[in-house]
Amino acid sequence: MSAHQATPTAVLLLSCRDRRGLVAAVSDFIFRHRGNIVHADQHADPEEDLFIQRVEWQLDGFDLDRQEIAGAFNVVARRLGIAWSLHFSDELPRVALMASKLPHCLYDLLVRWRLGELRAEISLVVSNHREVEPIAREFDVPFHHLPVSRETKDECEERLIELLDETDIDLVVLARYMQILTDRVIDRYAHRILNIHHSFLPAFAGGRPYHQAHHRGVKLIGATAHYATAELDEGPIIDQDVARVSHRDSVGDLVRKGRELEKVVLARAVRLHLEQRVVVYGNKTIVFD
Amino acid sequence: MSAHQATPTAVLLLSCRDRRGLVAAVSDFIFRHRGNIVHADQHADPEEDLFIQRVEWQLDGFDLDRQEIAGAFNVVARRLGIAWSLHFSDELPRVALMASKLPHCLYDLLVRWRLGELRAEISLVVSNHREVEPIAREFDVPFHHLPVSRETKDECEERLIELLDETDIDLVVLARYMQILTDRVIDRYAHRILNIHHSFLPAFAGGRPYHQAHHRGVKLIGATAHYATAELDEGPIIDQDVARVSHRDSVGDLVRKGRELEKVVLARAVRLHLEQRVVVYGNKTIVFD
Amino acid sequence: MSAHQATPTAVLLLSCRDRRGLVAAVSDFIFRHRGNIVHADQHADPEEDLFIQRVEWQLDGFDLDRQEIAGAFNVVARRLGIAWSLHFSDELPRVALMASKLPHCLYDLLVRWRLGELRAEISLVVSNHREVEPIAREFDVPFHHLPVSRETKDECEERLIELLDETDIDLVVLARYMQILTDRVIDRYAHRILNIHHSFLPAFAGGRPYHQAHHRGVKLIGATAHYATAELDEGPIIDQDVARVSHRDSVGDLVRKGRELEKVVLARAVRLHLEQRVVVYGNKTIVFD
Amino acid sequence: MSAHQATPTAVLLLSCRDRRGLVAAVSDFIFRHRGNIVHADQHADPEEDLFIQRVEWQLDGFDLDRQEIAGAFNVVARRLGIAWSLHFSDELPRVALMASKLPHCLYDLLVRWRLGELRAEISLVVSNHREVEPIAREFDVPFHHLPVSRETKDECEERLIELLDETDIDLVVLARYMQILTDRVIDRYAHRILNIHHSFLPAFAGGRPYHQAHHRGVKLIGATAHYATAELDEGPIIDQDVARVSHRDSVGDLVRKGRELEKVVLARAVRLHLEQRVVVYGNKTIVFD
Repeated sequence: MSAHQATPTAVLLLSCRDRRGLVAAVSDFIFRHRGNIVHADQHADPEEDLFIQRVEWQLDGFDLDRQEIAGAFNVVARRLGIAWSLHFSDELPRVALMASKLPHCLYDLLVRWRLGELRAEISLVVSNHREVEPIAREFDVPFHHLPVSRETKDECEERLIELLDETDIDLVVLARYMQILTDRVIDRYAHRILNIHHSFLPAFAGGRPYHQAHHRGVKLIGATAHYATAELDEGPIIDQDVARVSHRDSVGDLVRKGRELEKVVLARAVRLHLEQRVVVYGNKTIVFD
Repeated sequence: MSAHQATPTAVLLLSCRDRRGLVAAVSDFIFRHRGNIVHADQHADPEEDLFIQRVEWQLDGFDLDRQEIAGAFNVVARRLGIAWSLHFSDELPRVALMASKLPHCLYDLLVRWRLGELRAEISLVVSNHREVEPIAREFDVPFHHLPVSRETKDECEERLIELLDETDIDLVVLARYMQILTDRVIDRYAHRILNIHHSFLPAFAGGRPYHQAHHRGVKLIGATAHYATAELDEGPIIDQDVARVSHRDSVGDLVRKGRELEKVVLARAVRLHLEQRVVVYGNKTIVFD
Repeated sequence: MSAHQATPTAVLLLSCRDRRGLVAAVSDFIFRHRGNIVHADQHADPEEDLFIQRVEWQLDGFDLDRQEIAGAFNVVARRLGIAWSLHFSDELPRVALMASKLPHCLYDLLVRWRLGELRAEISLVVSNHREVEPIAREFDVPFHHLPVSRETKDECEERLIELLDETDIDLVVLARYMQILTDRVIDRYAHRILNIHHSFLPAFAGGRPYHQAHHRGVKLIGATAHYATAELDEGPIIDQDVARVSHRDSVGDLVRKGRELEKVVLARAVRLHLEQRVVVYGNKTIVFD
Repeated sequence: MSAHQATPTAVLLLSCRDRRGLVAAVSDFIFRHRGNIVHADQHADPEEDLFIQRVEWQLDGFDLDRQEIAGAFNVVARRLGIAWSLHFSDELPRVALMASKLPHCLYDLLVRWRLGELRAEISLVVSNHREVEPIAREFDVPFHHLPVSRETKDECEERLIELLDETDIDLVVLARYMQILTDRVIDRYAHRILNIHHSFLPAFAGGRPYHQAHHRGVKLIGATAHYATAELDEGPIIDQDVARVSHRDSVGDLVRKGRELEKVVLARAVRLHLEQRVVVYGNKTIVFD
């Protein structure tokens, strides 16, 4: 079913121990209030004795006002020990984009946003360089320059946290941002910082992955979108893709082909996150697509 | 052009420093003797100042007998400092297949051979187990059991070398053979031992790659065909491919999906090697496909 | 979750008008009898007001004997107007394979069967030629030669129906069988005859699709597994895949590359059908994979 | 080798009957004048007795001025009956973009142009609607509104030809332009009008291909970049790609997934054309990539 329905929807993300209780309770709750479900998917992990569900229904025709839903559902949830969160498709998450000098991912997300492909409010662009400032201006998004260096790193991160906090940011997208964030930022925005790494992780973690790939002589290159964690390039993977390369491809060709992958994989991951389709689970993700 | 022409062809693989000399000399040599070229491809590496070419032409209509070609070409090659090797498509390379307990790659190669897809003579099947013996018998290929253990490893490798040498083997295919060969074998058959690794190298080198992939939560799994070298899983890569997986896939599902990749990637690599389309080059390959 | 669990499972395929009734009833039925669900998926079609579900659970630990399940569930189903069918993973469907001269798909399915990849009993091989007879013998599957010609077509189809009926065949796989079956056969085995067409349907329906593809100059070739219907090449599609080709590829190369697609796509479709994962729905399929 | 070398290059596209003459002559010509070849590829068609070659070399170090090259090479070409054309990588082709209401392909090409990915001068944007005008303005490209209707069609085409002629346009890109051009335009710009069709041609030619695909229940959707010809959707194909879809995807989802394919396939085709890598050949293309 389409993620682009005209009418607003509600999304419940749920987890609990006892599957039976959850399935019956949620289905009963939504149908009792005349909800028209447009997406329902679930994942059971018998080893962890955990059951996770995503259910999305149209608000149109639902017989509870959106302010009432949380309260009403909480009665059900408390009884059965269900952990849950509730989201509305027309309440746009606030997003910060961070980039360094290479603007292709930043530009791609801004164009998608302008064309209505991303359900979000892009509230700020942050960079350690001035190069991408004109792009932010073009899309009327406030730009902030945080010129990170060894000396200014601490100060810049404090300013970054300030910016994110005062704008009440829901998601930070590292769109080829080439500075490492410290745990101070990472922990504060756990599972809300999304990064694109320009290789098929775990191959070629770390710096200059296209050079590494060229040196190793692989026949496919990749890109990986993942949540940033304290361990660099080790966070939960949301999406990956690859493209075929050959001995004819120079490092420059890998960069060019990789750029296409980076844009597509990052945009997919951002869309999945914004539509509440990604659940982090240990160091992995469940993607309800 | 098709690699499956009815009429036999000759293949020259060439490398030299001076591209100009080579292009002119080879094109002149073949046309002068009325050769009908069916494939010509080349690769130049300016950094290494090296030029590599593969040219294949029909023997039918060529005005030199196949016994005369080497001698005639050598006159040209010596003058220009060209290193070269000459192959005929109807002189079938002798191949040894090695497998352990999992027979899907072994079976796949034997069926392809029977259906005429591989230009080769499969001369022996070697295993450290007895499980695959009936399969070898079914295809009338001599089977040899080398029950490798810590104690027998040395002895088994000596026997293996003996077998390969006395059968005058051109190519050894490790079709999910789960023992590590020592340098004694590797060096003797340098760039003539082809292995399938059940991951997208360099990700998940070493043991149990599907378990590693499942644990890391990747969204694609892969398979890699490469030449075996002294460094485990570090040899020149010939081909790779991937398949999409999700949180729904258990390790068992990864194994099942991976099995498909392993068969396809290994078969492609074997075909490319047998048709003299792979040139090892540093720790990488040029694949003239 | 893996489709290859060691313990036997039951599969219910269900459809009804009222989603709410179905979800609650099925989940309640299975949990009440202590079923451990290993797969559950559903599809709602609001336009047709139809809800379709597949649910699979382990028989081990279920507190009804398998003979009792149908009767017990029927009470629930009748009350709610649910159409349903019940299957057990260890009751193997009987399969007939039909091929003409090209044996790669036939061979591939037989090898997969021998290696335990297909949950089925392959009961017969039927061909209009003698070429594939030795392959059937090798796998100890009864072979029947039906030499179809304009004159013998009627008689051959009668004999075919006789063979399928007396062997109580559940699925007929046209593994590159190059004769057109008439409605007499098609209708009798509706949605139980699975065909592989060697193109990306609806492109290049009809004869010699690789020649058509070569003539049109496409950059990808494909293969399509679908149920056979009275309209040739128009039946519900189960799976499709493509491979990249270029101007360098002759028709012979397309045939070679296409052969790989045909094997993989047909095997996937057969597996999906055998595991009761395909639901025909109008002229389309729902694939619960 | 990379298409993005810093130093300018010359490209020769050649065709002739006698391969031998051509290979020797071209290689001799370039090396004699100290050219450093960065790309050379060829295609032989024995049936048509035709040989086609593309060769690209660095102007830096070449001992002829670029004004002298054509004259010097013509001496060689005339002697051997070689048809040829000569191009310089730093002489930017002038491009016109045409779009209707959907701007994603237009926007994508303009962003790539701004980011330096396209070796071209984008000289105009033409549309039958006003919707895309602000986008053209944003990139400082002159915009022309040609409001095509049954009554104005003739007049609009005359104006279009005028615009293309007076701007001396080398390539017209139909970036989701939904009007059919008549032969008057097509013939005048033969093999210089590049179109993106939103299906995997020849499947779903004509209107509303995503609706057609949804109705047929295909498991993959595609996009096709081709040269426009008098026969709608029948022109020589340059590139194609596909994406996986399922019963879960609405027409809206196919449109969304297709949009990604359209952008990527069109951009690849435009780049290939601009780098003189596409040769039309009958109703097919040779792509020297």
